[in-house]
Amino acid sequence: MKNELHPVLSLRLFTDRKCFGPGIAELLHRVDEHHSLRAAAQSMEMAYSKAWKITKNAEEGLGVKLLASSTGGKGGGGAELTDEARQFLAAYERCVEKLGAYGSELIAQEFGFYNKRNA
Amino acid sequence: MKNELHPVLSLRLFTDRKCFGPGIAELLHRVDEHHSLRAAAQSMEMAYSKAWKITKNAEEGLGVKLLASSTGGKGGGGAELTDEARQFLAAYERCVEKLGAYGSELIAQEFGFYNKRNA
Repeated sequence: MKNELHPVLSLRLFTDRKCFGPGIAELLHRVDEHHSLRAAAQSMEMAYSKAWKITKNAEEGLGVKLLASSTGGKGGGGAELTDEARQFLAAYERCVEKLGAYGSELIAQEFGFYNKRNA
Repeated sequence: MKNELHPVLSLRLFTDRKCFGPGIAELLHRVDEHHSLRAAAQSMEMAYSKAWKITKNAEEGLGVKLLASSTGGKGGGGAELTDEARQFLAAYERCVEKLGAYGSELIAQEFGFYNKRNA
């Protein structure tokens, strides 16, 4: 099937503003891996200023602290996820996964006419 | 509840490329209303060249003709949706609607810990 449709979903969460989406989710994962916001940003080719901004915006929009400074270590000034950030990120990813599964089902249902034609 | 979360989903459809999403869906609605690709683009402040490009890309990616030229009329060269475009658009919108409903449910489930705290 050359032309079978597949869905790509993006989930953004708003409070009084857009505050959580694929970008900050990816960034938090990388902070967890690199123990530093700067290294996390670098690893995804995001400007540090942007990484800082989307983190601040998410924290303010959610009213939740996402990053905690860890002092010491090489270069000092590292960062770690707070427990709230882990909880939030896990919930976000469960939603993304479930929506993705449902999206694939829906496409198969609603676009049966199309996929059949291109089979 | 000041900070209650609400989700915003975007659904994009791919074949061998990204070919259908919120932009082309909105554009097709407006073509249906204005009977012209140029007027449709203008009404959503999209450059005509972009409107033409995303339409062509969708048609090629899907292997489906979405717009039919209608000759005559003021200024000539109008456009109408093909039957396939209507069918496709309707299926897309059913998916968007169902995903939106499921997304709201999921957020209530998965982020209960958050919304409760901010109640």
